[in-house]
Amino acid sequence: MYNSTDKIIIFDTTLRDGEQSPGATLNIDEKLVIAKQLARLGVDIIEAGFAFASPGDFAAVSKIAQTVGTEDGPIICSLARARHQDIKAAAEAIKGAAKGRIHTFIATSDIHLQYKLKKTRSEVVAVAEEMVAYAKTFTDDIEFSPEDAGRSDPEFLYEVLEKVINAGATTVNIPDTVGYTTPSEFGALIKGIKENVPNIDKAIISVHGHDDLGLAVANFLEAVKNGARQLECTINGIGERAGNAALEELVMGLHVRRQYFNPFLGRPANSLEPLTNIDTRQLYKTSRLVSSLTGMLVQPNKAIVGANAFAHESGIHQDGVLKNKLTYEIMDAQLIGLTQNQIVLGKHSGRNAVRTRLKELGYELTETDLNKAFVRFKEVADKKKEITDWDLEALVNDEIQQAPELFKLELVQVSCGDHARATATVTLRNPDGEELTDAAIGTGPVDAIYKAINRVANVPNQLIEFSVQSVTAGIDALGEVTIRLQHEGRVFSGHAANTDIIVASAQAYVNALNRLYASSQQQRQHAQLASNS
Amino acid sequence: MYNSTDKIIIFDTTLRDGEQSPGATLNIDEKLVIAKQLARLGVDIIEAGFAFASPGDFAAVSKIAQTVGTEDGPIICSLARARHQDIKAAAEAIKGAAKGRIHTFIATSDIHLQYKLKKTRSEVVAVAEEMVAYAKTFTDDIEFSPEDAGRSDPEFLYEVLEKVINAGATTVNIPDTVGYTTPSEFGALIKGIKENVPNIDKAIISVHGHDDLGLAVANFLEAVKNGARQLECTINGIGERAGNAALEELVMGLHVRRQYFNPFLGRPANSLEPLTNIDTRQLYKTSRLVSSLTGMLVQPNKAIVGANAFAHESGIHQDGVLKNKLTYEIMDAQLIGLTQNQIVLGKHSGRNAVRTRLKELGYELTETDLNKAFVRFKEVADKKKEITDWDLEALVNDEIQQAPELFKLELVQVSCGDHARATATVTLRNPDGEELTDAAIGTGPVDAIYKAINRVANVPNQLIEFSVQSVTAGIDALGEVTIRLQHEGRVFSGHAANTDIIVASAQAYVNALNRLYASSQQQRQHAQLASNS
Repeated sequence: MYNSTDKIIIFDTTLRDGEQSPGATLNIDEKLVIAKQLARLGVDIIEAGFAFASPGDFAAVSKIAQTVGTEDGPIICSLARARHQDIKAAAEAIKGAAKGRIHTFIATSDIHLQYKLKKTRSEVVAVAEEMVAYAKTFTDDIEFSPEDAGRSDPEFLYEVLEKVINAGATTVNIPDTVGYTTPSEFGALIKGIKENVPNIDKAIISVHGHDDLGLAVANFLEAVKNGARQLECTINGIGERAGNAALEELVMGLHVRRQYFNPFLGRPANSLEPLTNIDTRQLYKTSRLVSSLTGMLVQPNKAIVGANAFAHESGIHQDGVLKNKLTYEIMDAQLIGLTQNQIVLGKHSGRNAVRTRLKELGYELTETDLNKAFVRFKEVADKKKEITDWDLEALVNDEIQQAPELFKLELVQVSCGDHARATATVTLRNPDGEELTDAAIGTGPVDAIYKAINRVANVPNQLIEFSVQSVTAGIDALGEVTIRLQHEGRVFSGHAANTDIIVASAQAYVNALNRLYASSQQQRQHAQLASNS
Repeated sequence: MYNSTDKIIIFDTTLRDGEQSPGATLNIDEKLVIAKQLARLGVDIIEAGFAFASPGDFAAVSKIAQTVGTEDGPIICSLARARHQDIKAAAEAIKGAAKGRIHTFIATSDIHLQYKLKKTRSEVVAVAEEMVAYAKTFTDDIEFSPEDAGRSDPEFLYEVLEKVINAGATTVNIPDTVGYTTPSEFGALIKGIKENVPNIDKAIISVHGHDDLGLAVANFLEAVKNGARQLECTINGIGERAGNAALEELVMGLHVRRQYFNPFLGRPANSLEPLTNIDTRQLYKTSRLVSSLTGMLVQPNKAIVGANAFAHESGIHQDGVLKNKLTYEIMDAQLIGLTQNQIVLGKHSGRNAVRTRLKELGYELTETDLNKAFVRFKEVADKKKEITDWDLEALVNDEIQQAPELFKLELVQVSCGDHARATATVTLRNPDGEELTDAAIGTGPVDAIYKAINRVANVPNQLIEFSVQSVTAGIDALGEVTIRLQHEGRVFSGHAANTDIIVASAQAYVNALNRLYASSQQQRQHAQLASNS
């Protein structure tokens, strides 16, 4: 539990709010890889999920608590509505962590009370107090959020906060749920809480916000100036709708301008001490990992982690000579870990070199996974002269994402051109172990592959997004394909990396199909259980 | 020239600062299409380029001035350094516009004076005064920017501004060139100018900023509260490094929160009158157009125009029933022109239906271009059942981008698969009219195509980016390929849309090669002229 008030606590919710982005669904293994990287990045708290939401969410929170929630690791947190069953599930899921937190919430704005909760103000206060006290029976570290605080009556908000702090909340989190407030308003909201909640010194003030008007980061920095000490944010700012406040922007803003923020934190104005525990050199890498696993692309003009953000560094010719770096630069690309001095492996690199480099990059693989990764490495090294760190990471991430392998792609073969009909032949092994082969024509090679796979697999779905990115520069680069399928209102994503984008497209499609199929099998089982009971 | 102080003037610099994004280079036709759309969007001023920078820039500003700078159209502006030759070129380029503006600038921060300009403060003041007076001999509408104002000594800044206003500047633009300031600091800077420059009521205060810390939009809104009345911004926030303030975020922020901003503009607090002249229903379309023509992708969690920004609208299943839209929404997707009621054309749609729909979408094509577009439409309609507005726009944008056609792709034919070597055969017509055919193998089909084209075209280059996006949902969607090549430090982009991504890749590559080749031919001609004189 934190009591420090002169450092800013970074609460990462990439795995909870971030994963709520349409299409960004992650499986347990992917969540675990991201959680490990968040720990290396140095976040103080990982909100690992919403344990009660589904058995998959529960398992992910529980696994992260056990694996990443070590004594010197981050606090592991689960979200829970202000209900007994939610809080109980959260408590059980975080049990394996050395430091666990339960984060419970209930709305306090009149519009939510009237239309969503259908409760009076006094009913809401009673529920909040009772549920915080109940959560306190499981762990000391309790966070409470009054949902839609930005549109709540301040007087009522003060009352709720005072009562939940008395009931045991150690962090009170103020969300701008709909992304409506401006920095001055949000700063004033925090100031009002600081001045009007009598026992506020017994809790950390946290903030949460959405970027619908592009103001989330500015709102948070203004909140810091007015007393907020915990920031809830996500890598690349992913999350519902326009997303959350971007962790990398908050951290670098606080870092680059720390002499501006120092006085608000009671520090000497000229102190160069970092304001957060984040290892900024892990920012770029974390951004790429989250982008690759969620399939949420980062635009080139994104602050801090966009491909152009440090374009001065990339050797791009600039009009006029830069006689002094400081004339146009406020931060150094190395500070976020964007360095061109990558170690490059090649086809003569051995298994040990690959293992060592992967370990340095933060991947500790089992022997089985290392063997799989090494086979992939050799395949790619045969085709591509230089294997960079980014290639290695793409290959390992690709391996991690293969499960569950219900359908397996055995062969894909395509011919196409501007004077030919695109034709694909596909062999798939289905979950029953049968090998099925068929061919199809399409409007292009990807369409032909998808139609051939559909003939064989026969799993209904709708393709809603298809994109390809090259992993590194150069004509023989790996291509990373992301596809999203929709079925009965749910979205499933698939990724694959290959030097052949046609093969990668087929693999990504089978990958997404496997997730869709696994989910529909689970639903069928649940339905059967329900009808049996 | 503007004197209004109760409305916010939108100054769009997508075609000047936006086009300075690495790789976002636009040709004249593309710039003209964007300028026309900006006029439909209702921007007050279009900064069309930097006329002195190159003959291409001059021609683009001049063409836009003549075509888009009508009596009831936007003001057309050219940037110019504080030098006679720059200002003269700007004046000539904007001559064809009914309302023209010259925007001249010189740095005022000590760090820029010392390292870049190597001038004293009094020298800088003298140059600024003289150049504003010189520009005034060509047009009444003069904008002056003290570059790096955010890091300039305020007293010196006030002095410079007072002198240039006396010399005839009607707009003074305060840039945060390096994206370093926070909202409170930027607001205070504007407040200081408003209070300390004695003749400030004779000019409009404008702001310009970069998004390096993710604060550009927030800085601008704070500037508005303190007296700024012109905002310099770009569509999708593109621009150098992390880009400029995003037009769509500024406009929607001012719109959604107009009752908050009204008092700062001297309006009744409850007025619902718009604060800008922007037709917000054109925002989404403008965003797509700029993204497609520049090849600068928009991330899904981008505020206002990202694919997920209005995910509530997209039919994606949400946990919990929304009993009242207002509980989670602060704006309606229709407000930005994001509507699902698109008119859909099909293979039985005639030439007239296509022409009519294109006109409604804002494309007024010549007969020749319409014929080309209709041929493409028929080709696609044969393969794809429904042609949406987005497909139509992608096809037309694709046609616009074909020039200059020095190399022409005559045939592409590929075979590949996971058990085969990717092999491509390509026929290219070179600038001398010769037809050349060759084949190559590659690590994948795109690599094979590129290698085959390289064998035939023999233009040295390095591929630095390759990406594919689907234009619409569905398995038979058009794929839009963007590639970026680098040669001698310069970046060239190519785009193409086709239902076959392999064919689109070949077309996009030839497209980029043509730009690279045209540019190297121009450079050779310039070098010859220089050695002859």
